[in-house]
Amino acid sequence: MASRFRHAALVGKYQAPCSRRVLADVAEFLAAQGLEVSLDADSALATGIADYPALTTAEIGRQCDVVVVVGGDGTMLATARALAEFNLPLVGINQGRLGFMTDISLAELRETLPAMLAGDYEEEHRGMLQGKVKRPAADDTLEVIHESFAVNDVVVSRGATAGMVELRVDIGDEFVANLRADGLIVGSPTGSTAYALSAGGPILHPKVAGWALVPIAPHDLSNRPIVVPDSGEVQVEIVSGRDATVNFDMQSLTSLAHGDRIRVRRSGGTVRFLHPRGWSYFATLREKLHWASGAV
Amino acid sequence: MASRFRHAALVGKYQAPCSRRVLADVAEFLAAQGLEVSLDADSALATGIADYPALTTAEIGRQCDVVVVVGGDGTMLATARALAEFNLPLVGINQGRLGFMTDISLAELRETLPAMLAGDYEEEHRGMLQGKVKRPAADDTLEVIHESFAVNDVVVSRGATAGMVELRVDIGDEFVANLRADGLIVGSPTGSTAYALSAGGPILHPKVAGWALVPIAPHDLSNRPIVVPDSGEVQVEIVSGRDATVNFDMQSLTSLAHGDRIRVRRSGGTVRFLHPRGWSYFATLREKLHWASGAV
Amino acid sequence: MASRFRHAALVGKYQAPCSRRVLADVAEFLAAQGLEVSLDADSALATGIADYPALTTAEIGRQCDVVVVVGGDGTMLATARALAEFNLPLVGINQGRLGFMTDISLAELRETLPAMLAGDYEEEHRGMLQGKVKRPAADDTLEVIHESFAVNDVVVSRGATAGMVELRVDIGDEFVANLRADGLIVGSPTGSTAYALSAGGPILHPKVAGWALVPIAPHDLSNRPIVVPDSGEVQVEIVSGRDATVNFDMQSLTSLAHGDRIRVRRSGGTVRFLHPRGWSYFATLREKLHWASGAV
Amino acid sequence: MASRFRHAALVGKYQAPCSRRVLADVAEFLAAQGLEVSLDADSALATGIADYPALTTAEIGRQCDVVVVVGGDGTMLATARALAEFNLPLVGINQGRLGFMTDISLAELRETLPAMLAGDYEEEHRGMLQGKVKRPAADDTLEVIHESFAVNDVVVSRGATAGMVELRVDIGDEFVANLRADGLIVGSPTGSTAYALSAGGPILHPKVAGWALVPIAPHDLSNRPIVVPDSGEVQVEIVSGRDATVNFDMQSLTSLAHGDRIRVRRSGGTVRFLHPRGWSYFATLREKLHWASGAV
Repeated sequence: MASRFRHAALVGKYQAPCSRRVLADVAEFLAAQGLEVSLDADSALATGIADYPALTTAEIGRQCDVVVVVGGDGTMLATARALAEFNLPLVGINQGRLGFMTDISLAELRETLPAMLAGDYEEEHRGMLQGKVKRPAADDTLEVIHESFAVNDVVVSRGATAGMVELRVDIGDEFVANLRADGLIVGSPTGSTAYALSAGGPILHPKVAGWALVPIAPHDLSNRPIVVPDSGEVQVEIVSGRDATVNFDMQSLTSLAHGDRIRVRRSGGTVRFLHPRGWSYFATLREKLHWASGAV
Repeated sequence: MASRFRHAALVGKYQAPCSRRVLADVAEFLAAQGLEVSLDADSALATGIADYPALTTAEIGRQCDVVVVVGGDGTMLATARALAEFNLPLVGINQGRLGFMTDISLAELRETLPAMLAGDYEEEHRGMLQGKVKRPAADDTLEVIHESFAVNDVVVSRGATAGMVELRVDIGDEFVANLRADGLIVGSPTGSTAYALSAGGPILHPKVAGWALVPIAPHDLSNRPIVVPDSGEVQVEIVSGRDATVNFDMQSLTSLAHGDRIRVRRSGGTVRFLHPRGWSYFATLREKLHWASGAV
Repeated sequence: MASRFRHAALVGKYQAPCSRRVLADVAEFLAAQGLEVSLDADSALATGIADYPALTTAEIGRQCDVVVVVGGDGTMLATARALAEFNLPLVGINQGRLGFMTDISLAELRETLPAMLAGDYEEEHRGMLQGKVKRPAADDTLEVIHESFAVNDVVVSRGATAGMVELRVDIGDEFVANLRADGLIVGSPTGSTAYALSAGGPILHPKVAGWALVPIAPHDLSNRPIVVPDSGEVQVEIVSGRDATVNFDMQSLTSLAHGDRIRVRRSGGTVRFLHPRGWSYFATLREKLHWASGAV
Repeated sequence: MASRFRHAALVGKYQAPCSRRVLADVAEFLAAQGLEVSLDADSALATGIADYPALTTAEIGRQCDVVVVVGGDGTMLATARALAEFNLPLVGINQGRLGFMTDISLAELRETLPAMLAGDYEEEHRGMLQGKVKRPAADDTLEVIHESFAVNDVVVSRGATAGMVELRVDIGDEFVANLRADGLIVGSPTGSTAYALSAGGPILHPKVAGWALVPIAPHDLSNRPIVVPDSGEVQVEIVSGRDATVNFDMQSLTSLAHGDRIRVRRSGGTVRFLHPRGWSYFATLREKLHWASGAV
């Protein structure tokens, strides 16, 4: 079968260490499928593999038409964020432990990938969050001091020495609540099975056009998770609490001061995941959450 | 101001007892606004008020163009279900305790209602659930044994003598999970602040096009609430467990046998609530959940 | 090694069906260890095994000095309740799936049991609950209408057609709360890993001298589980709600009326479990709750 | 009535700002009851009140026989910790908002306090936690790098830039679990209505001789709160995670490195609270958790 893709970028570096041999094997396998293969520069540097061109993120965005990520969900998350603006399809390969976003195991690679490269796959689009941090300036205007994307979540947290952070939450021009808590997660459906789930949030099916606002250890027991439409803008203002921070996918972090506002809205772009034919969101959920393993 | 409406039906009977005097007062006030006023037959019977025509549900549906409900959320729920097919706008008046759906207090009635009747209101549409219970017949076909609407939720519950009920959940043609629990709630955004919230579900903003599937006391601790798009059909099958039941808004109840399937999909109709100008969903939430009352 | 025990009763009947062959094998193995072996009458009847005397519960209590239960935690629970007054040590054998109370697998039986029978075991005592249901009589006295023991829990539940049950809870002569919910669990440490856990209760280590009061789907979100000393008497009164019931270990069930009071106090007796040397409560917990299986 | 006490220390400084006038009033009232009155040095400094001797903590411990705290639970907590070794009875006065530990309002002071000072009170003892942080030294021994008391809780938390902290938990010489989470709370019954409650822990009645181990946002959904006897030693070891910290009552905080162990055991001393006659733990609970305020 002729490949639907021409030039694959291979990524294997970020959080999960990926051995040189595994990455070299995958690269060789992709090349054997007739694809031009490049390594992202950091993966090449980390593994010392020199048989393929090493490309920067921007070069991948311009030259490649598919990205193969080897690692866990953390690696995929970092890659998806880095390539957010390029709209490239992503294929996730895990090294044994199924991920929500890295759903092909190394063991089934040789069987599964050829059909996918030939165009037989299920394509799924996931929304992204776009966040800006605004700080009141001397002249009462708001200055953007940080800006970032998130695939999973935007998280505002208390500082280590503060008992809590107090946040004012608005959606569009509607006041939602003042919240005293360890923090607040604004999570996408993709993020709903990550940190937000640990904090007590619901699982959001990827096709739900909403975000979960999940308080972390709220003082008020009735401050329950709220799911809101993803069409509005969520604003979180720091009312009180020392050393609060905001992070995007736990990867880009900024210190906050009183009066700072974090504004989150839906990003124009989406993440494109390619799954093997027959992939099922709920099957992944059942396996990841051990639903098949029986109850107490 | 001329009234935008012509003929109001007044309802005050169901779960919350509504004194004759209160209902008579509201009727008189509506008549004084130039509206033709009728009582629903049960309210007339229960209160003995005979000064206005008493109409059946069907007659209200054909003759009236606005329905004023005096009571709590339970009364409103019953009225909305009964009138589901007629698409009439509903105005909710509480007798002191703010409801999610009955948001005008008797005390502010005289100030608030005239503007609303003149057309100055916020109209909000809430989706409904439509459920069918199908039972396998001798010839392997499925026979519809019950059919009903729900504004809040469709709830499958274990019988009193059964330790649990085992349910198989599918969405469209995708298998979701086998669940062993006290039961399962399929809840609309409107229902998300009712029983589903008690069972640990998230709050769904009314504009979220989704339903919460909320397990009640699930054996498997990772069986967390899932929010799914309201565009698909949810099927719940009774796998095991004696004397299981399904209810719709806790008002219409049917006994279930093994193999029975409850199919829930979005109803064509919606509930139309009229709120006073300036009404805020989040303000109601803050008051009902005591968010204003401070934390521990 | 000489056996520390003389006469074993073998039980294998209740909830988990136990094949004739498995029970016959275990009986033969026990006899080969030099023990006199009897079957409990129901197990003998259910399996048709006639090679050993069949004893009633009372006969087991008088004649035997150890009880071997083959099955799951449900079987053990029923056996422990039935033999509550006799203070016999219990050994639990599961058929493949580790139980909290049946912690020896069939596979390791031959290796583990001889040492235990010779006296090399860890003995653990678990407290029991003793409950009385009292109903107001015509002369204003309270009449005992039901009385039972529970190893796990005493559970008051709403009826199927009632949206909730309202309960008044007192401890000793202190008023605790009025609770509107699906029900209330009064659970022992042993029961804390059963139904109470599903309903959101904490795990109580067996050495904690307390009970968990766990509301099931409470209307008031701040009605959180409370752990109270097991030295007091817990009283639960039915304030409102049709068709409420109370059950003891989900095995003995009684219908309740308004005004009925369920009084729960610590039973004088305890359940004696014998575990293999090296048994660990937390190891069982880790395996049953899949803590070893990694996180999402 | 003659006072049972001779010399009251008055404290009003810590977290809740306490106006000079309120403190001066309370001091005058105490003096009018025939008591010798001193101010703690920080309160004297903060308010500028110079009419009474200003004593250090150590001087209060040696000279006074009752301590009156004006403020919220935070002020009481700090005072109780500071005076932990002196075993002085504490009376808590709030400025309008009932506290768990500051249960007399300013308004009822004049009515309530005279009887209490005359000996008509309910005395309640609350256990304290004693924690040591041990760090592996070059010679493989463990060195104590921090030591502190806690009335509420000992909390281990992840650093702001770390996605989680991984902790190994042991009780005595039994391994409990490896936990990946935002952190872990070891909470006393007193602390069970504070941070631990926000994190999903149960309420522990003060007479329960146990602690709650409450994971904060655990990755593994089955890592539920566990109540353990307070007679053992809980050890928490930092397995991985940057910049973790441990705090005692959110007041004394230390940075942690991998391999550090936090050992928590019951302190020899207790906190002695004096309550007005008729005080009820559950009444406080009902008011603080708004149980009286009705459900959704």
